[in-house]
Order: sequence, then C-alpha cells, then structure tokens
Amino acid sequence: MSNHTYYMQQVLQLARMTPRQTLPNPQVAAIVIKDQQIVGIGTHLFAGGPHAEIYALNQAGDKAAGATLYVNLEPCAHFGRTPPCIEAVIKAKIAKVYVANLDPNPLVSGKGVAALRAAGIDVETGLCADEAAEINRVFFHNMRKQMPYVTLKAGMSLDGRIATKENRSQWITNAESRIDAHLYRVNHQAILVGVNTVITDNPSLTPHMLTNPEAVPIRIVLDRNLRTPLDAKLINDGAAPTWIITSNPDAILHQQYIVRSVRVLQVAELTIKTVLTTLYQNGICSLLVEGGEQIYSSFIDSGYVDQLVCYYSPQLIGSTQAKHLFAGNGFADLQSNMKFKISEVKQLGNDVKIVSVREYKDGV
Amino acid sequence: MSNHTYYMQQVLQLARMTPRQTLPNPQVAAIVIKDQQIVGIGTHLFAGGPHAEIYALNQAGDKAAGATLYVNLEPCAHFGRTPPCIEAVIKAKIAKVYVANLDPNPLVSGKGVAALRAAGIDVETGLCADEAAEINRVFFHNMRKQMPYVTLKAGMSLDGRIATKENRSQWITNAESRIDAHLYRVNHQAILVGVNTVITDNPSLTPHMLTNPEAVPIRIVLDRNLRTPLDAKLINDGAAPTWIITSNPDAILHQQYIVRSVRVLQVAELTIKTVLTTLYQNGICSLLVEGGEQIYSSFIDSGYVDQLVCYYSPQLIGSTQAKHLFAGNGFADLQSNMKFKISEVKQLGNDVKIVSVREYKDGV
Repeated sequence: MSNHTYYMQQVLQLARMTPRQTLPNPQVAAIVIKDQQIVGIGTHLFAGGPHAEIYALNQAGDKAAGATLYVNLEPCAHFGRTPPCIEAVIKAKIAKVYVANLDPNPLVSGKGVAALRAAGIDVETGLCADEAAEINRVFFHNMRKQMPYVTLKAGMSLDGRIATKENRSQWITNAESRIDAHLYRVNHQAILVGVNTVITDNPSLTPHMLTNPEAVPIRIVLDRNLRTPLDAKLINDGAAPTWIITSNPDAILHQQYIVRSVRVLQVAELTIKTVLTTLYQNGICSLLVEGGEQIYSSFIDSGYVDQLVCYYSPQLIGSTQAKHLFAGNGFADLQSNMKFKISEVKQLGNDVKIVSVREYKDGV
Repeated sequence: MSNHTYYMQQVLQLARMTPRQTLPNPQVAAIVIKDQQIVGIGTHLFAGGPHAEIYALNQAGDKAAGATLYVNLEPCAHFGRTPPCIEAVIKAKIAKVYVANLDPNPLVSGKGVAALRAAGIDVETGLCADEAAEINRVFFHNMRKQMPYVTLKAGMSLDGRIATKENRSQWITNAESRIDAHLYRVNHQAILVGVNTVITDNPSLTPHMLTNPEAVPIRIVLDRNLRTPLDAKLINDGAAPTWIITSNPDAILHQQYIVRSVRVLQVAELTIKTVLTTLYQNGICSLLVEGGEQIYSSFIDSGYVDQLVCYYSPQLIGSTQAKHLFAGNGFADLQSNMKFKISEVKQLGNDVKIVSVREYKDGV
C-alpha cells in the first residue's frame, strides 16, 4: 500500500463514522499531511455545518502551507449553505490534493478540481474511488436518481417465507438477527411499513440504540384508506415522528391523525413511484422498508429496491398460501429480473444474513 | 489440546477421507501410538474389507504390545463379514483404547468396550464424540431410522424460487455453485429426480469428478406413470446405473426400460415413505434429491429431509406461480415445522451456499 492509499484509507475510515446524520449531504472526511505527519483532521457532521476540509485546514493552521490534503469527495466550488471549500484550500496554500470521488452532481462535477488546478494546485483524483463511493452510496443514488435509497429488510425461512399460511411470523429469525436488524433502522432516515403490519403487529419501529427524537428515524405508514388504528403505538408513543401516506382525500379522517401530531401526506395515486417521489421531496434520502408481503412485493415489482437485507432462519415453512418475501407479478425470465451483488454474508447464531446491493443495468 | 485429543483429531481427519465408499459401513480410522510415535495407521475402505483397527494393528506388529489405540468407532465384538476386532486388539496386547463413538446399533452398542475391559484393557469413550458423529451422520441415521439419509439440494433466488413462472431456471446460480454442487453427487450413493425434471431438462446427473461406473451414484427417477422418455440421457448414456421407481404395474412398460438396462422398482403406493423404504431395502444408504418443485415439496411435506444444501443467487424472481423450493401443504405454525442447524455458510462468487442439518425433536 502506498502512503497515499494509506492516508486515503484513514480518510475513508473517518467518513464511515457518520452514516445518515450528514444527509442530504454526503459523508466526507479530510486530513492534511505535512512532513509525513497528520496536521489536520476534519469530518463533516451535519448538513449546514462546515465541510470536512474546513475543519482540517483550520486545525492545520499555518502548517497547511505546502501540505497535502486527502479528501474522499471533490471540494466544492460553489456557494451552498457554506462558502466554497476550494477558496479555503487555495488560501491555505495547500500544495497537493488527493480526491477519491468527483462530485456526482452533473452540474458541478469536476468544477472543484478544475478550480484548484487553475490555482496551481496539483490534484489527483480516483484514489480508492470504489471504496469511497460505497460509503456514499445513499448520496450518490440521491444525486443520480433524485429518489430515496431504498433498503428492503426481511427475516424469512430458507424457502423465502416471511410468515406461515396462518400468518404466524413471531419469530422466524432469532434474537441475534433481530438485534442486528436494528442497525439498519439507525442508518436510515425513515422506516416504512404497510398499514396491515401496523394493524397486525402494532410495532413501535424504533431502533433500540437511539432515544434522541431528533436522531430516531421517521416512521412512515403506507395507508391507502386511512385504516391505521388511532390507538396504534406509533401514533401515540411520541418516540419518533410518524407520517402517513395516503390517497384518501377525506379531510376529517386526516384531522384525526393530525391532532395526534401525525403528518399526513396525500398523494393523487398511491404507487411506489409517487410515494418515493413525495418522500424525497420531503427530505427523505434513505428509506428502510420493513414489510409486510404486499409492501415488499409492490416495491420489488416497481423496481425501486436498492439494497436487500435478508435474514434466513434454517427452517422450512412452505405452501404458496404462506407469506412470501416476494409474491407480486414476479419476473418471467432470468434476463429481465432484479439482480444484486452480495456485499455481506454473516452468520448470526443459527441464522444467516445476506446483504446484497442492486446492480443497475446502466451501471449506476 | 491434550495429546489424546490431538491423536483423535488425526483419526477423524483420516476417517473423513472415505465418504460414501464405506457404505453401508461407517467411516472408521485407527492409529496406534507407542512412545509418542505413530506405529500404525489404518482406514476402513470398503464394506467387506478389513476394519481400520486391523490395518493399524498389522502395521504396528510387535510394537502394538503396550501401545494405545485411537479409533473413532467402538471396535466390534461380533462376527460380521470379518472376525471381531476386539480379538485382534486383545491379541496385539494393546494397553489402552480411546473410542470416540459407541456403536449406534442398539443390539451391539457397548459390547465391544465391555469385552475389551473384561480383557483388562483400559478404555475411554467419548473423546471428540460430536465431531466423530458428524462424520458418520449417514451411518448413524441408517442405524437409528432404518432409512436412507436424505439430502435435498437446490439452487434458488433470494426469495426461494427455483424457476420463474415460465419455468426458466437455467441458470439461476453461477458456475462456481454448480461445480460445488457436484461434490454432493460424489458423496451420495444415489441421486433422485422427478420424471418432470427428466422430461424438461434431460439431465445426465453424473458428477464431473467421477467416471468409474462403480463409483458413480445411481440415478433414480420417481415416475408414477412411467413417462420417462426412452431416449432420455440417463436411460441411454450408460454413465451410471439408472433405476425407475413407479407404482405402475404394466409389465410391458417395465420391459421397455429393463431391456435398456434400467432397473424398475415397483411399489404398491408411490409415497415418499415407501420410496425410501424400498431404496433402503435395496442398499441405498444416502440419497441426494435434486428436484423439481413437486419432488422437493413431497419430500419436505413427508418429513424425510435430513440435510438441506441451498445455493442462493442474489436475484429476485417472485410470483406465487413461479416454482418454489417448497410449495406443498407447508406448515401452519412455527412450532411444528422442520427445523435445521446451519453447518456451513460459504460464499461462491456472487452466490451463497447455506448447508443445514435437520434437528430432530427427539434429538436423534
């Protein structure tokens, strides 16, 4: 491993520490190296706050002159909520910059690097690019698709059933898997379930690890006909914001939820596409879908699934009347169906988790 | 690790080398240790041939006197196809014997150990017993259940589909998985498919690794109405024996297959239980079931599945009309259904293999 790769790996390590909390911004870290020592370290923490480069350059102070900056995302050349980072880099007299990924926004991509080069700074791009892109999978997806990043999480038997034909599902997977699953709640901005799941299971959908209401993901119920029970936990427990998405225009029904501090989002037609578009317009960058069968199947049939987190318990349930991970229309052939790339396989006691990431045919 | 554990591990290593070829006998190895050196090594190779202890004692010769014998299965006290091993052990003046497992046959279990002790030999049992029992899973199952050990092997999508609703299945899993799967053909005495699989896929069902006709597993077709095409590969290629199991009594139809060197086994009623009983009576100790949906489902509904080898490809197929690993009647609740214990999880390129072993409620 070259020194440059080593330093960029340190940057990536830092950038990995802030999943979800930077959204809609990317996870970015930066270090400043002078005479083979770290003289500045910075991490972007929250949208609206300073960028990683600024923290790192401030810490470096005068030592930044002639130093090398490592940053996983191209420094910005435009005024956003903060002044452009390239100005600070130039002003600090940085001699060389290593960038992992260019900005994925086509309107600004490459402009930061060009501006630095125009100021006489040596810039190399693409160092550890794949690993860096993996960290900002959600942000890159948002920029490219203008849609939330959708993770579908499910526990099932080896034959792909999420409940028996008598709708028994507690518990197919073991306690270790169910605790592991909470990590995905922590790392997504919102958790979506269908109204049937609320009626049947009355879940609170809060991650064990988080109690700060500002950090807890928003709970979203897909509820075409506004059947969510008014005494449901997620309506009353105040543990996290709750939104209901419906196509039912009945203002009196809406009001029942609104007075209980629930936000009601009305869409003209309740399709997965309109749901996701609406959520993205309302600031949801990443969404964890937790079922049940009808919701999973609608998402898969719609094509809007970016990551699958499947927990398998070594048991068999069978019957086509049982609840499937994916019932729906399905795919007739093996060319047109949804393909993924396995990103993690982990044994959890006597269960197995398989995480896989969507492989888009256009490569993005 | 104690010396004794270390030596028994060497024995187990040896015993693992002969899957399938010792059947209906168990896989047994033995070593003789004198003054901390191996003076004899023996492995049972084929039913009818000498037992492991005999080879090891012969190699040790005079050095066996006062030595320690390590063997994974209790030495036999009865005349089978060969004289009882305990006589040879006593005659060789072995001082101490370590045994991993007692003989699972209730008629003789413990008799070998008792006879050795009666002759003044110190015997310890149970060293590495669980690992040793794992090696002889097939043999132990045969002894306890008087039925073949049944492994069900299938390649599927993450949602448990083995073919699309238009019956497309070539290929769901990747080449690496399909090669890995051949190991299971090598390690079973017979491979069973349904007649529909023969009609649709016309498979040869031979393992890539084996060409010796005596080593190739027997191909078995479940064919209620004798619809196996006479020009099917497994009828004509002579690559391995082929048996057809049917409940159709039509002697003229039988004859069509018999003249092609196919063995026809007729059962009164074609249930999985009668099929397995018939196969066991005809010397089949281990059976690999390769599908399709109807066969898998019948085996699972019948309860006769001892091991599951599932290859998952990270793709989704969906639709309840697609082919399932397990359609069938299924299980209504999570108490009565079939439970397994994961024994292996392996990533094969972009596929994942999960092997799991049946957990019987009575523990055996």
